[in-house]
Amino acid sequence: MTRTSIQIRWSDIDLLGHVYNGQYQHFFDIGKSDFFNEVLQLEHNWVEVGEGFLTAQTLNNYFAPIEMHEPIEAITAIEKVGTKSFTMLQRLVNTLTGQVKSESRSVIVCYNTLTKQSIPVPDKWRAAMQNHIVEQL
Amino acid sequence: MTRTSIQIRWSDIDLLGHVYNGQYQHFFDIGKSDFFNEVLQLEHNWVEVGEGFLTAQTLNNYFAPIEMHEPIEAITAIEKVGTKSFTMLQRLVNTLTGQVKSESRSVIVCYNTLTKQSIPVPDKWRAAMQNHIVEQL
Amino acid sequence: MTRTSIQIRWSDIDLLGHVYNGQYQHFFDIGKSDFFNEVLQLEHNWVEVGEGFLTAQTLNNYFAPIEMHEPIEAITAIEKVGTKSFTMLQRLVNTLTGQVKSESRSVIVCYNTLTKQSIPVPDKWRAAMQNHIVEQL
Amino acid sequence: MTRTSIQIRWSDIDLLGHVYNGQYQHFFDIGKSDFFNEVLQLEHNWVEVGEGFLTAQTLNNYFAPIEMHEPIEAITAIEKVGTKSFTMLQRLVNTLTGQVKSESRSVIVCYNTLTKQSIPVPDKWRAAMQNHIVEQL
Repeated sequence: MTRTSIQIRWSDIDLLGHVYNGQYQHFFDIGKSDFFNEVLQLEHNWVEVGEGFLTAQTLNNYFAPIEMHEPIEAITAIEKVGTKSFTMLQRLVNTLTGQVKSESRSVIVCYNTLTKQSIPVPDKWRAAMQNHIVEQL
Repeated sequence: MTRTSIQIRWSDIDLLGHVYNGQYQHFFDIGKSDFFNEVLQLEHNWVEVGEGFLTAQTLNNYFAPIEMHEPIEAITAIEKVGTKSFTMLQRLVNTLTGQVKSESRSVIVCYNTLTKQSIPVPDKWRAAMQNHIVEQL
Repeated sequence: MTRTSIQIRWSDIDLLGHVYNGQYQHFFDIGKSDFFNEVLQLEHNWVEVGEGFLTAQTLNNYFAPIEMHEPIEAITAIEKVGTKSFTMLQRLVNTLTGQVKSESRSVIVCYNTLTKQSIPVPDKWRAAMQNHIVEQL
Repeated sequence: MTRTSIQIRWSDIDLLGHVYNGQYQHFFDIGKSDFFNEVLQLEHNWVEVGEGFLTAQTLNNYFAPIEMHEPIEAITAIEKVGTKSFTMLQRLVNTLTGQVKSESRSVIVCYNTLTKQSIPVPDKWRAAMQNHIVEQL
């Protein structure tokens, strides 16, 4: 499980003074980046390596608005690892109050960036994700 | 059902030359805006009126990447209308090839922007949405 | 001179109900894209061709706020063409009232994307831009 | 002078693998927010207070591209304080190498958010900015 503090920008705020919920996916993706770097230790040039992945589905629940000055972190873990895909489970949480703002599940499909074909989850990724599998956050 | 042509921006394009899928929600929301204006004929100052809504859930499936110069439109309809919420069904489609790039379901909860309480779907909205209910797009 | 209608997004709107002025550069760049496609007839794969350019400077003046539902277009022309660079002159205008919202000057330097060196303005670009040089918009 | 570490997002990266320079204004504005909070100690609800400001001009120079994983901070100071406006001077810098990526000057006009008229720079702001005036960064 990784925790990533989110830096909120003026451009994230909408007419109501809240973070526009269309930006939440950006926040979740900042969390994913950290997870991939820290847990999977992906090389920065992963695009050229061949082993890659793409997002097949995102399911986001929005529980409470985020105000501009709230301290928010993205919590990122793995819900399950399948044959050719894995599911990430994430939350946006106010670090002071613990209030859960949003929860997201993403289905990530592994594929070869050169052949453009889906591939089995690489063994080294599967091993690295084992310690980060949770039932809930 | 409304159809909204999407203007793709340089800032939507990612490292791979595709539209970053985190931007798709922005595209779907452009489609929703059009739908609300055309079908529900929402006043622009709806924020002050009291009758409002918020997004409770989005479920997006990503089928194919969008290239920078593809002609894309968002198709927006209603899947079902409940007591206090309704579900919108949307697609992003290449208007030349018909290829479906992504499909999105959003659960929208009606609520009073002044009391901050959920409310029944207003009758005028329910009536206006009747002709835009589809089983699939 | 090219004119490009701008599609405003929910994510462009700030706390005050105006377009956040940090987004204006995105709007100007939509206008530039159109100009490059129409006037310079740039190939889409210009990245691979070698002849490219980069933005060295932007000078933006903000005259009036843009409201969410205003019809806005970006007007794009050339102010001058130098040896290795050219200056673009642009405006964001309300197409109904003619009100000028913002004006932007961008210094664009030509360079070879393969050698990463600045290069003279290619003759075909210089020729194509001749008919689009203005003293003011 | 304030220093603000910038969190780069996937959505900031363009086709070339660099931060899209249209996003630099967002980074500079994160720096401004910090400056306003720390130096001017602006109340969060400044919108309602009456004393506000708006951006009249931005002049940005782009010196070098920012790569996705570079550690970047925004440095923010005041260049001069006039009667009704002040000029901010900012840089984006790689904190490891010290390389200056971009420099920005913004002319900020003080105005009353209720009367929508420009106003003299409030004395308390003028005093607070005195210790943050620099000739160059």
